[in-house]
Amino acid sequence: MIRLQLQIELSYTVLAPGADFFFFIHAAHTPQQTVSDERLVISQSDASWTLQESPAMDQRCLRLSANPGPLKVNYAASVEITHHVADPAQIDEVPVCELPLDVLPYIYPSRYCQSDRLYNFAGGLFGHLPKGYARAQAICDWVQQHVTFRSNSSTGTTSAVDTLVERVGVCRDFAHLMIALCRAVNLPARFATGTDYGADPSMGPPDFHAYVEVYLGHRWYLFDPSGTAIPMGIMRLATGRDAADVAFATIFGSVYSDQPRIHVVAGEDPAKGWQMPVHTASALSTA
Amino acid sequence: MIRLQLQIELSYTVLAPGADFFFFIHAAHTPQQTVSDERLVISQSDASWTLQESPAMDQRCLRLSANPGPLKVNYAASVEITHHVADPAQIDEVPVCELPLDVLPYIYPSRYCQSDRLYNFAGGLFGHLPKGYARAQAICDWVQQHVTFRSNSSTGTTSAVDTLVERVGVCRDFAHLMIALCRAVNLPARFATGTDYGADPSMGPPDFHAYVEVYLGHRWYLFDPSGTAIPMGIMRLATGRDAADVAFATIFGSVYSDQPRIHVVAGEDPAKGWQMPVHTASALSTA
Amino acid sequence: MIRLQLQIELSYTVLAPGADFFFFIHAAHTPQQTVSDERLVISQSDASWTLQESPAMDQRCLRLSANPGPLKVNYAASVEITHHVADPAQIDEVPVCELPLDVLPYIYPSRYCQSDRLYNFAGGLFGHLPKGYARAQAICDWVQQHVTFRSNSSTGTTSAVDTLVERVGVCRDFAHLMIALCRAVNLPARFATGTDYGADPSMGPPDFHAYVEVYLGHRWYLFDPSGTAIPMGIMRLATGRDAADVAFATIFGSVYSDQPRIHVVAGEDPAKGWQMPVHTASALSTA
Amino acid sequence: MIRLQLQIELSYTVLAPGADFFFFIHAAHTPQQTVSDERLVISQSDASWTLQESPAMDQRCLRLSANPGPLKVNYAASVEITHHVADPAQIDEVPVCELPLDVLPYIYPSRYCQSDRLYNFAGGLFGHLPKGYARAQAICDWVQQHVTFRSNSSTGTTSAVDTLVERVGVCRDFAHLMIALCRAVNLPARFATGTDYGADPSMGPPDFHAYVEVYLGHRWYLFDPSGTAIPMGIMRLATGRDAADVAFATIFGSVYSDQPRIHVVAGEDPAKGWQMPVHTASALSTA
Repeated sequence: MIRLQLQIELSYTVLAPGADFFFFIHAAHTPQQTVSDERLVISQSDASWTLQESPAMDQRCLRLSANPGPLKVNYAASVEITHHVADPAQIDEVPVCELPLDVLPYIYPSRYCQSDRLYNFAGGLFGHLPKGYARAQAICDWVQQHVTFRSNSSTGTTSAVDTLVERVGVCRDFAHLMIALCRAVNLPARFATGTDYGADPSMGPPDFHAYVEVYLGHRWYLFDPSGTAIPMGIMRLATGRDAADVAFATIFGSVYSDQPRIHVVAGEDPAKGWQMPVHTASALSTA
Repeated sequence: MIRLQLQIELSYTVLAPGADFFFFIHAAHTPQQTVSDERLVISQSDASWTLQESPAMDQRCLRLSANPGPLKVNYAASVEITHHVADPAQIDEVPVCELPLDVLPYIYPSRYCQSDRLYNFAGGLFGHLPKGYARAQAICDWVQQHVTFRSNSSTGTTSAVDTLVERVGVCRDFAHLMIALCRAVNLPARFATGTDYGADPSMGPPDFHAYVEVYLGHRWYLFDPSGTAIPMGIMRLATGRDAADVAFATIFGSVYSDQPRIHVVAGEDPAKGWQMPVHTASALSTA
Repeated sequence: MIRLQLQIELSYTVLAPGADFFFFIHAAHTPQQTVSDERLVISQSDASWTLQESPAMDQRCLRLSANPGPLKVNYAASVEITHHVADPAQIDEVPVCELPLDVLPYIYPSRYCQSDRLYNFAGGLFGHLPKGYARAQAICDWVQQHVTFRSNSSTGTTSAVDTLVERVGVCRDFAHLMIALCRAVNLPARFATGTDYGADPSMGPPDFHAYVEVYLGHRWYLFDPSGTAIPMGIMRLATGRDAADVAFATIFGSVYSDQPRIHVVAGEDPAKGWQMPVHTASALSTA
Repeated sequence: MIRLQLQIELSYTVLAPGADFFFFIHAAHTPQQTVSDERLVISQSDASWTLQESPAMDQRCLRLSANPGPLKVNYAASVEITHHVADPAQIDEVPVCELPLDVLPYIYPSRYCQSDRLYNFAGGLFGHLPKGYARAQAICDWVQQHVTFRSNSSTGTTSAVDTLVERVGVCRDFAHLMIALCRAVNLPARFATGTDYGADPSMGPPDFHAYVEVYLGHRWYLFDPSGTAIPMGIMRLATGRDAADVAFATIFGSVYSDQPRIHVVAGEDPAKGWQMPVHTASALSTA
């Protein structure tokens, strides 16, 4: 079991009345991930907010209407993750005709994952590989090997096609390209957000993280195509078709944003069954 | 009440084993639209198929695995539509902070509706209009006035941005552009498919149709930006974020497709309350 | 020496007054290519036209203003090509700092060859290869191996980036992608048009052809990335930065176009030094 | 007559051997623009360089190969501009069939000016305007009114189509969009670089500037679609099909660049015939 202590500190300046925020900063409630000791502190005492849970998606959306002036949103929680662990060699693909109805959206193209343009490309590289977890892993590896990580090399409109052409990006771009390639060979894949446990401190302070879940063997398995985190230590916030759906903050209004500050510590305590996240060859699922 | 008699005839040649089809050809079950006398005839007696209903979306997906050789799929039904009719002047927008959680996906960009790139453009043209149904209508009118309908002028990868630049398209392109512009001013909008009742026969035989629903006054209202159909006579098949989600047929495998044949007749019978579809200045909803 | 007998028949219907045409259908005059027995027949006796020679570019532009009604433009010529033939192993690249001023435009991106977006991609695949003819050949081979030829798979707006993503195209698309990749590693490359001598008749009737010239060893060498022609039999019409510059016909006005009809025969006569075009491992230049 | 005193200071750090630079920082020699008192100082005494003049283009390219370490390139000159001044109402368009051969490239699309995608759009807005200078001015005004100037809002790959969609940019983007729209209605237009005399100091220090020349009445007339400079005070450096051709510095190699420093002063001296640049309704040409 992984035990993470999480703190997220967001800081804004609202410049005009009528600013609305949608946040995905609450740790997801999933069968594999339990959350306790949550604290949410919002600096504006008169801001109105609600926390809405999407049961279908295992995620929580914090919606907040703020007033002009400074705004701080601090969230802290303890999260316990008991991964579903499986042997990659035993995980098959689910034939398209057997995919559940609620999984179908994840084989279709989306804003940043134009899989419809990649059929020839993905088919040529991955179409003839044996079906199963190993094929998704091959796509993940290909993306990691062919794209260079560079901070600030992409923007909010950068898509999988751009990344395929320009071969540079941040974790979000790696995730979009992997998703698009998976969908182009009919593997359902979705965008997941969390925190980048294990990321190299030389690449910057701890941050939100984007990774991928692929639907295999009737489960969503976790992949980290940017290779920047230790997957076992990724805590899940939200999932969607791509970054359009689950930005950690979607802001409507005139707002100045500071860099988010994130702090994650893994607890180690054999007596409690807590172990440190490590790299593993096993397949992991938190869904 | 509108009463439509619908026939859809699809004809394929399956060229290799292992062809899967997802169809959205069943008339939707909605509070405003009831379906009776349905007949589905599939020419391959040994093809396996299921019909799955998505309650959240009011639509039915026919999933079929076919064998090599000819395949015909014929669907017929009687559909009664009792529109929710409202006065446009009385229909307000729903503030972003009050949008239901299941409506949120429809303010985000999607594959063919890159609203994230259109904030300045849409804000400049429509941002300062009074909020409400009239603003959605203004967007619909703008699209109709600034894009030229031309058969075969677009492809399966054509998006709203392409249509904004090139100013030509088919009904699907008009719908994508209207949706993208709506979302760019935070109006939730979705892609809907049906049949093109009332289309000018000189433009071709009856066909599937793409139109738009905008979430206003806590309801989804119908708009026809291509202006090619009589909205009151549009029978609803399915809705989604854009054409990626609700193609009438999504095909996996090696298949040759003929043109679909569609036949829709409106019944007129005052005794039964059936009236002919006509153009109207009222706001209509079938959801 | 190669000796080609060429006939080009173009057929149009001019639908309204004021139609202007620019044609590149005259065989180029180059030190390696001589033209004799030219005949140009224009069916409209009252159409005004001029033939302008661009000495810098070794090509001739036929400019014609036509009247409403049918228009036929027939061109025939005898062309003798004495290739500059070289050993690929002896051909070096010209360092950027030594490129002549009139060659510089061909290392910059152009409409259909967005080399500026391909630096990482091209650098990763071809940046570390030994410099020289072999590097251009490696790019040519890569394009031929990774793109599939399919008639009518692209349009007039399809660019090198599209072809890199979608991996399908016609000769023009192969040429654009090869040019963009060459420029991305600072190899000057230009678009050339001719006729597709040697093309497989099963792929369609004889046609205009698009190929590539790369500036190496202070000369422009010929490459055929689509691999559909016998390069030794390609007669040169015109060169430019990409297809935008040297379409065989650029039309201003309301005109209906038929398919061009092209007929090329190679003469074989040892007494006259005429040999048949064959595939060769030597480097060829007609410039 | 306008008399400008110009200083350009460029500062680089060459990080590895083998850095080549192409600069367009020399004031152009044109019939309307004469240059005197030039000084070029290159800090690396052992750097090799040449200054090449392109007579066809009225511009000079400084090509320099530098060594690792700091590099400063300082250029100063006195420039006298005697504009060709004309009455806009007297300036006609040149019919396509009468355009000189060397002007033709400027009606074709280029890397950043995809006029081929804008025929419907430009035709709809500007196709039916009376032909002449006023039509080019209408395009210039439209761009200025529909695009917002914002520093750092675009990148090196931003094109006219992007600017048309996103409606924001810097002077280079305004120029590309105006050029693309002109070409889409068959008005030859080219990209010109100079210095931004008269720019509002609140928008930043003096800088290089991008503007447009349109071929009308057998001359290239100057337009400033971003509206940030006083056109009469723009000194010409170079022209090309778009920014791909005439960046003030094109760099091959591993180089760190500082911001350029530019200083331009207009001299006023009635005795010498020097007047200050002012806004004018007359048409101006420096070519």
